[in-house]
Amino acid sequence: MPNGRAPARRVTIIDVAKHAGVSTTAVSKVLRNAYGASPEMQAKVRAAIDELGYRPSAAARGMRGQTYTIGVMLPDIRNPFFADVLDGVNAQLGGTDYQVLIASACNDEPAEAHVTDAMIDRNMDGVILIAPLTSRKRLERIARTVPTVVVGRHGNSAVYDTVADDDFTGAGLVVAHLAELGHQRIAHIEHDETDPVRLTEMPNAIRAVGYRHAMQAHGLGDFVDIASTTYTQHGGYLGAKQLLARPQRPTAIFAGADIVAMGVLDALTEAGLSVPGDISVAGYDNTTFAAFAPISLTTVDQAGHQIGVNAARLLLDRIADDSRPATQVKLSPRLVTRRSTAAPGGGAAAARTASQDPVL
Amino acid sequence: MPNGRAPARRVTIIDVAKHAGVSTTAVSKVLRNAYGASPEMQAKVRAAIDELGYRPSAAARGMRGQTYTIGVMLPDIRNPFFADVLDGVNAQLGGTDYQVLIASACNDEPAEAHVTDAMIDRNMDGVILIAPLTSRKRLERIARTVPTVVVGRHGNSAVYDTVADDDFTGAGLVVAHLAELGHQRIAHIEHDETDPVRLTEMPNAIRAVGYRHAMQAHGLGDFVDIASTTYTQHGGYLGAKQLLARPQRPTAIFAGADIVAMGVLDALTEAGLSVPGDISVAGYDNTTFAAFAPISLTTVDQAGHQIGVNAARLLLDRIADDSRPATQVKLSPRLVTRRSTAAPGGGAAAARTASQDPVL
Repeated sequence: MPNGRAPARRVTIIDVAKHAGVSTTAVSKVLRNAYGASPEMQAKVRAAIDELGYRPSAAARGMRGQTYTIGVMLPDIRNPFFADVLDGVNAQLGGTDYQVLIASACNDEPAEAHVTDAMIDRNMDGVILIAPLTSRKRLERIARTVPTVVVGRHGNSAVYDTVADDDFTGAGLVVAHLAELGHQRIAHIEHDETDPVRLTEMPNAIRAVGYRHAMQAHGLGDFVDIASTTYTQHGGYLGAKQLLARPQRPTAIFAGADIVAMGVLDALTEAGLSVPGDISVAGYDNTTFAAFAPISLTTVDQAGHQIGVNAARLLLDRIADDSRPATQVKLSPRLVTRRSTAAPGGGAAAARTASQDPVL
Repeated sequence: MPNGRAPARRVTIIDVAKHAGVSTTAVSKVLRNAYGASPEMQAKVRAAIDELGYRPSAAARGMRGQTYTIGVMLPDIRNPFFADVLDGVNAQLGGTDYQVLIASACNDEPAEAHVTDAMIDRNMDGVILIAPLTSRKRLERIARTVPTVVVGRHGNSAVYDTVADDDFTGAGLVVAHLAELGHQRIAHIEHDETDPVRLTEMPNAIRAVGYRHAMQAHGLGDFVDIASTTYTQHGGYLGAKQLLARPQRPTAIFAGADIVAMGVLDALTEAGLSVPGDISVAGYDNTTFAAFAPISLTTVDQAGHQIGVNAARLLLDRIADDSRPATQVKLSPRLVTRRSTAAPGGGAAAARTASQDPVL
C-alpha cells in the first residue's frame, strides 16, 4: 500500500503513530488519557489524529474489536450523588475517545442482570457498576468477561477493582457531631438489607454498622433506633413517619443518604415540625441538594467527583492491561456541618434563629 | 434442519412464531409492546421466547443488523425533569427487549454532535433527543440515518417525530396566576438564546415568548423584566441576583424551569428574603423538587412521564415502519399552585402564615 493514499483504507493507530513520529503505545496513552503522556506528546498525537481523520471508534471495531464505549450502571437516576460520580467519570474520560453510556437498574437485581448482559452483548470495553446488588459470584463472572470497576461496594475481589468511601468512619462522624451537640435519641434510616454478603459489602449496610458502633462508643447504645426502608426520597419519608410514630421521638435523624434526608424533611414538614428546632437532620453524600441554601443540610462529603475520577482511571488502566492485580481505592469522608443540625431541646432558641432566617 | 434441534443454531423470530402458533408480525408486535397485541397473544409469545431461549439482542445482530438499543440524549443529568421523561420511556419499553442507554450532552452543541455520532456508530436502533441544540439541518441528517424522536423542541420536520408541551400556553398560565394574585412586577429568568431557528423552536425560547405575550395581554407590558442566564441551578442563582440588583425589585419571579427556581431560592435565602412573603416564585416542569414539602413550588406540569411514553411509542412505531409520515405530539400543560406564590406586598400576612408553617 504505497504511501497510504488509498482513500478507502481506514486510518489506523499505526498511521497516527508514524505521522506523529511517536510509538503506538504513546498514541494509545493519549487516547486513554493515561499518566505519562506529556503535553507535547498529546499535542503531536492530537494533530496527527486531526490531520489523518482518525476515528478510533469506527477504526477499532475492525482492528481489534474495541467499541470505545464505557457503560455506567446506576441504581437510581434521581439520586443527585450519582451525578457527582458521573461528573468525575466524564472529567477523566473527557480527553479520550471513549463514550460513556448510562443505564439505570432501579435498585433491582434482575434489572441489574439485564443491564450488565446488555452492556456485555454490546461489546462495551469496560463497565463501572455503582453500588450493585448483584451477587459477588455474578460480579466476578461479569469482571471475567469485561473490565469492571465496582463503585461504592466494599469487599475485595481478585478480578475487579473497587472504589469506595470509608462508610464506617463517615457514619461515625455524624453520630459524633450529634452527640457533641448533646443529642442522645439519634435515630438512623437505613436501606433494608438481608443478604449476608451484601450486609458486609454494601455502603448502606456499612453505614448502619458504623452508626451502631458509634452509638455504643458514645455510651448511647440504649438509644439505637433504626427505621429500615430504602435509599430513596420516598424511603426517607416512610422512615421518618415510622420514627415519629414510636413512643420515644428522636431528637435527631441521621438519614443514610441526602436523598433520604429529602424525604425526612417532607415528612417533618407534613407533621408541622421544624428543623433543627424540633428535630436535627443529617444526610450523607454532600450533594447539590445538601448545599441548597433553604435546606442547608449537615452531611458527609464522600467526594463523589473523586470517586468517579478514580473509577474511570482504574477502568482505563485495566482495559490497557487486564492482567494487573485488582486494586481497591478507599477515600476518607469528611463531615460538612450546616444549619439542619443544632443542640436538642433548644426549641425556643432554634425558633428565634429560624424567625431571623428567611423562611419558605 | 429437521425439527430445529441443532443446538448451536440461533433461535430466530420465525422459530418463536412457529412455536407460539402466531405470525412473525405478532411476535414483532409483542417485542415492541405495540398496540394490538392482546394479553393472550403476549402470554403465548412470551412463553415461546422463554421455552426456546430466544435472545433478540444477540440473534438480531446476525439476522438484520438490529441491536435492540435505544439511545436517549439529555442536556443535563441533574435536572429532575428528565428523570420523569426517562421513567415514561422505560415504562413504555419495559415489556420489550430494548435496552435504553443514556448519554448527557451538557447543553453543548459540539458535545451533542459527539453523542449522536457515537449512537449512530454503535448502530443503535433509534434515538430520543431531549431538547437538542443541534441545528435543524443536522437533526434531519441524523433522522435520515437512524429513527429519531425529538422531545421538547418545537418545529415540524418531515423526517423526525416530535413530542413537546405547549410551552407558550404554559408560560401564560404562570403569568395569569401571578397577575390574578395582584402582581405587576413579574420577572422572568430565561435560558439565553440567540440562534434564529432555536428562537422559534426551543422550549425555553417559547416560554419567554409566552411570558412576554401574557404580560402584554394582562396590561403588564411595561413591567416585562427578563434575566437571561441558563436553565440550571446556577443560572437561576445568577438570574435572581441580577433581578434583585435592578432599581425596581420584582414582587414575583417566574423561573423557566424548576431547577432554575432552585437557584432562585438559593439567592433569595442568601439575600435574607422570604418566599412568598417578600417575593413569590414559580417554576416550570412539576418535578419531584417542586412537590418537596419544605419548598412547595408553584409550577407548570408538562407531564414529563407522558412525554416519555409518547416518545418511546413513536420511536418503536418508526423503527417498525420508517416510511410512515412524521408525527407531532403536543401535550397541554397544567398549572399546579403551591405555597411559593401569594399576593404581593402581603409581607405581614405572609410572615404570619410562615410562622405557622414549619420552618427550616
